[in-house]
Amino acid sequence: MIAPNTPAKGEQTRQRILDGATRMFADASFDKVSLRAVARSVGVDPALISHYFGSKEGLFDAVLEGALQPERAESLVGEQPREEWGRSLVRYADTIWSGAAGRPMLAVARRALAGHPEMMSKFASRVILPRISGVLDGPEEERRLRASLAGSQMVGFIMARHVMRIEPLASLTTDAAVDLIGPTIQRYLTGDLTQS
Amino acid sequence: MIAPNTPAKGEQTRQRILDGATRMFADASFDKVSLRAVARSVGVDPALISHYFGSKEGLFDAVLEGALQPERAESLVGEQPREEWGRSLVRYADTIWSGAAGRPMLAVARRALAGHPEMMSKFASRVILPRISGVLDGPEEERRLRASLAGSQMVGFIMARHVMRIEPLASLTTDAAVDLIGPTIQRYLTGDLTQS
Repeated sequence: MIAPNTPAKGEQTRQRILDGATRMFADASFDKVSLRAVARSVGVDPALISHYFGSKEGLFDAVLEGALQPERAESLVGEQPREEWGRSLVRYADTIWSGAAGRPMLAVARRALAGHPEMMSKFASRVILPRISGVLDGPEEERRLRASLAGSQMVGFIMARHVMRIEPLASLTTDAAVDLIGPTIQRYLTGDLTQS
Repeated sequence: MIAPNTPAKGEQTRQRILDGATRMFADASFDKVSLRAVARSVGVDPALISHYFGSKEGLFDAVLEGALQPERAESLVGEQPREEWGRSLVRYADTIWSGAAGRPMLAVARRALAGHPEMMSKFASRVILPRISGVLDGPEEERRLRASLAGSQMVGFIMARHVMRIEPLASLTTDAAVDLIGPTIQRYLTGDLTQS
């Protein structure tokens, strides 16, 4: 039987490198992970990692991007009516971080926040927030502010629910979490921010 | 000249131990800090640390409690009209975490979240959240839910603004942050959570 949609070999190798790098960034701090060690752990030449990802920073960003799929967040927002954005984004984030790909990423994110918070910040500012602020209305500075406010609730939601596991937030169903946190994200993205 | 309100010597020693422990928990992971090393760094007998704090976990909790002063959050809420709780708590948190005591605590909290998120969770669940849920109205489970939701926005606000330093949130004045984040905390504490 022929599987017509098998990913090309290059894409498979790239994914194998990302999986290996995720494991290593979850187990050791960024400074202690070398491209050479990642290459060894997945059985490829270190030059191939440089070819695909440029640098260790590039590899780290690709690990985050592969897990968080910010382009899905953007297209998801694009497909939804405006008044559903808050709920859609909470559902999307909760599904990713509680899924199989999210669990190792929680360790990666925790380690990065502890040792290199500026890397998480750069990734958010370069890759995630522009995709959100880009679909909003208004002057650029206001759109950036709205995206960063939504980001603050999203970071806290994931930390409190999936890392600190504070109850009863940690035990809510995704549907309940969407109902409770969604309106906050919605207000930050589209609400009247001068109203208090 | 006699200073009548000089703290008792025991209190001074206790504070000296807390300051030394804060520096050590900021510089090394919880597992690598020993009571013996803290004692050495401030020039006291290790038995004195056990006397004051019981265990390393007790010392760690006291470091967090000394910096975050949850009893101040509670009394502050008690003194304010109900509709000001959200804004008051944001102002209180932002003032603490951007002040002189907050900066070393950011490093302590980052390290703890990376290595021992359950310690931050236990501290929040035992020391901070009950002081908030205790002043709310309604059945206990709902009050606990409200406190944990407010906690999620507070954790995210501090992380995004003071640890990741995501712009433009990081550069806002405290007043502006209070106006933007306060209504979220207010809704979680006293708003209609079924309304979405």
